[in-house]
Formats: sequence, C-alpha cells, structure tokens
Amino acid sequence: MEPRLKVWVEAGDGRLVLSDYRVRLLELIAEKGSLADGAAEMGLSYRRAWGKLKEIEQNLGVRLVESVAGGAGGGHSRLTPEAKRLVASYNRFRHALAEHAAGDFAAAFRE
Amino acid sequence: MEPRLKVWVEAGDGRLVLSDYRVRLLELIAEKGSLADGAAEMGLSYRRAWGKLKEIEQNLGVRLVESVAGGAGGGHSRLTPEAKRLVASYNRFRHALAEHAAGDFAAAFRE
Repeated sequence: MEPRLKVWVEAGDGRLVLSDYRVRLLELIAEKGSLADGAAEMGLSYRRAWGKLKEIEQNLGVRLVESVAGGAGGGHSRLTPEAKRLVASYNRFRHALAEHAAGDFAAAFRE
Repeated sequence: MEPRLKVWVEAGDGRLVLSDYRVRLLELIAEKGSLADGAAEMGLSYRRAWGKLKEIEQNLGVRLVESVAGGAGGGHSRLTPEAKRLVASYNRFRHALAEHAAGDFAAAFRE
C-alpha cells in the first residue's frame, strides 16, 4: 500500500487559488516567456489559460503576470515578483508535505 | 489562504483501497453493528455499500466485516481485527498529516 495525496490552497472564502495544475501553468509561462506558449505546453487554449490566470489573480487580489514590451523578440510575458514568491512557497509546501506523508504513513501503518 | 488536502491509499498496482469515505463506512458499520445501518447512515443503498466493501476486501486481500450469529437481537456484523487495525492506522496517518500540513504551509508561506 502507498499513500496518495492531492493538495490545493483556498482563499479564506473557500475559493481555489493554487493547485499543482495552476502552479504548473505559472511555471511554464515563466519558462516560455509567454502565456500562449505556456498554455500550449499544457494543452490549453490561450483563452482558457488567460481565464484561469485572471481567476487566480482575482481570487488572490494580486497581479501574477506582466508584459515586458520591446527588445529584439518584440516583448514577452513574465511572472510578477509576487507570483514568483507564491510559486516558490507552494513548491516548498508541496515538497515538505510529500516527505511528511511518506513518513507519517510508514509510522501509522507500522504500529 | 489555507491548505486543503485529500488523502487516499492505493494498493501497489494503483487500485484505491482506503479513503476518508471508505474508512467512514467501516466506522459506521462497526458503530451500528450492521452493514445496512452503516450504509443508511451514509445515504448509501445496502447493495452499493456491500459492493464497496467487497471491492476493498478484494483490493486488500483481507476480510473486513464478519457476521456474528445469534443473541437476543438476532445477530449483527462487526469489523474483523484486520479491519480495525486498518481503520486505526488510516486515522493515525490522516491526523498526523493534517497537523504536518498546517505546519508545512505556515513555514512555506512565511518565508
């Protein structure tokens, strides 16, 4: 037997704000420098990815992605400092909990 | 923001064996002394509860509920020692992980 777990983060009012899926989208936008490319990498339409992003921004009350104009490539998108902090925090949480899950499960089922 | 989590236990081959829902059914069967009454308490038909139970027994390869014949009331059902151990282990796991989740979340988002 082995433990499985699904994690997410809700706002105080119960609205979903962060999940593995949402954080993955943010990471891909950062990696590709583009919402369109990040969305494509997840098999999402631009429209759907944009809607998801706006939903998280609204639920959190913070801006997550910003556009950077100009440059040789004609501009790109990047995560705001706040979004980078959220992604890093979520991943720290995720990894710490996964380790605890393995240990807690072994201890609970050993007795 | 607050962390939320869903936990379950799979057999080595990926089949679901224990979850909050399944453990609750076992607890209610134990409490009521009857599969029918435990099922009713969860709003499940007897047939559906019985099917769920057989599925878990098959996936785990252990007997979970046994019938006790006779007595003034005409017999009842109870959990096998193995089922009692599984319920207790699952609950220990569940509670330990919930505490870790709160602590891990606070630590990860404090930084």
